Amino acid sequence: MSWFHETLYPDVRLGFNGRLLHRKKTAYQDLKIYKNHRFGKLMLLDNVIQTTENDEFIYHEMLTHPVLFAHPNPKDVLVIGAGDGGILREVLRHKVRHVDLVEIDTEVIRASKKYLPSLSKGAFCDKRLSIILDDGARFVRDKSKEFDIVIVDSPDPVGPAKVLFGKKFYKDIFSILKNRGIMIRQAGSSMLQQDELKQNYKLLKKIFPSVTIGLAAIPTYIGGFFSFLIGAKGINFQGLSFRKIESRYKKLNLKTKYYNPQIHFASSKLPSYLRGIVNGKK
Amino acid sequence: MSWFHETLYPDVRLGFNGRLLHRKKTAYQDLKIYKNHRFGKLMLLDNVIQTTENDEFIYHEMLTHPVLFAHPNPKDVLVIGAGDGGILREVLRHKVRHVDLVEIDTEVIRASKKYLPSLSKGAFCDKRLSIILDDGARFVRDKSKEFDIVIVDSPDPVGPAKVLFGKKFYKDIFSILKNRGIMIRQAGSSMLQQDELKQNYKLLKKIFPSVTIGLAAIPTYIGGFFSFLIGAKGINFQGLSFRKIESRYKKLNLKTKYYNPQIHFASSKLPSYLRGIVNGKK
Repeated sequence: MSWFHETLYPDVRLGFNGRLLHRKKTAYQDLKIYKNHRFGKLMLLDNVIQTTENDEFIYHEMLTHPVLFAHPNPKDVLVIGAGDGGILREVLRHKVRHVDLVEIDTEVIRASKKYLPSLSKGAFCDKRLSIILDDGARFVRDKSKEFDIVIVDSPDPVGPAKVLFGKKFYKDIFSILKNRGIMIRQAGSSMLQQDELKQNYKLLKKIFPSVTIGLAAIPTYIGGFFSFLIGAKGINFQGLSFRKIESRYKKLNLKTKYYNPQIHFASSKLPSYLRGIVNGKK
Repeated sequence: MSWFHETLYPDVRLGFNGRLLHRKKTAYQDLKIYKNHRFGKLMLLDNVIQTTENDEFIYHEMLTHPVLFAHPNPKDVLVIGAGDGGILREVLRHKVRHVDLVEIDTEVIRASKKYLPSLSKGAFCDKRLSIILDDGARFVRDKSKEFDIVIVDSPDPVGPAKVLFGKKFYKDIFSILKNRGIMIRQAGSSMLQQDELKQNYKLLKKIFPSVTIGLAAIPTYIGGFFSFLIGAKGINFQGLSFRKIESRYKKLNLKTKYYNPQIHFASSKLPSYLRGIVNGKK
């Protein structure tokens, strides 16, 4: 047992006491699996914590249910990144027809199946799933299919994930979304990576008629509220009624651990320090 | 410059890169002031981070404005702990008549005035303030005065702050609150200190007719949502209308950096993992 620390920020860091279970230098990144007493098993890519067994539910529920419940009838879903299977697990609880998972690094899927099986919970065997080992930016450029929902579960904008934070990428996503399609992406810590959130909000605003910032508090991602960006094509995401979201949620009878219809709405209420981004004053 | 780490949890820790500016072994605790590039100056007590210059506004706004705006006419306020002055600064922005600050450790006040002057912003010179150097538990036991608002800004329930988490203490607070009085206290990380939150919720429920859990995402306090407990005597805290809170907020014309009327209501919407506490199922 020894302490290991994330290297995401130069001046503040989260550390875990634990032991290394697995390490693999893949074609794209340095993948490590650690075991910690409180958080269970953790996956790090290039020394940045991606997910832990015990708090992954927050990130995975909040990157799926807000958009899947906002859509009247989500059938075809594209998931970019997310090789750990957590997003898949949550998406497949909805009555979707098909999910395409585009993950660049097969070793992420392999290690997750072996060390973090509670994330995918069998989702990799679901008949509705196709796995495409490819670069997400290239996949959306090809425009071979259309989707109701696009979920971008990328790491931070360093290394292979950099292309998943650009204007061209968002334009391509917009064009493969059906008329009432919605996209969601993670946008980092609202305090420690605020520039990332700001830049991506601005980019999306130029492309999508409705853009919403969503927030969740996730232990593994330090820096106060963690943020999501939601771009909706033909739906007024923020104009949906509580009653509608609640009725869809009840109909599906999900037992969620973080998300619920109250949180659906509360999670897009912004602390004052973020309002400038939306009002264009910052 | 070197890394220093909080020692609050045995298996997960937050670290800052910085340098030590001041250290004092006081009669009660080991007080340190560090300087970090991103968060500014930080205060640690017994190696637990209490506050930082750059994110203190979240904690201090959320421990004051929700209760001060929920009360129709807050005049007399008791603040226990809070020697750094951050709570005082926010309380004194309201039209209060008098504030009693009960802090056990004069060195906390002294170091905060010198190293963290932006926290109190001159509040220690306000004519409406009395400073009482005493144990908060003893002060409330004496019942010499009555209050509209009681704010308990204590460290975690270890060391001198342990008495500020007991049934007797809450009963004494209840009895010094006026008919429409409200108390608020910090209750730790909703994930890493969930037992503390649960226990204190139960204790308060036995004493106060209305108990509410409030949440905020604060970088310095790791572990997902940080929690607050609000006990109201003759007011239905959760039954207040948005319109009422908004009109009080606008009347005072505060420029808050985290709190706003939307956050007032959103901050008491609970993720599903916390609902068991309120429903008595956990």
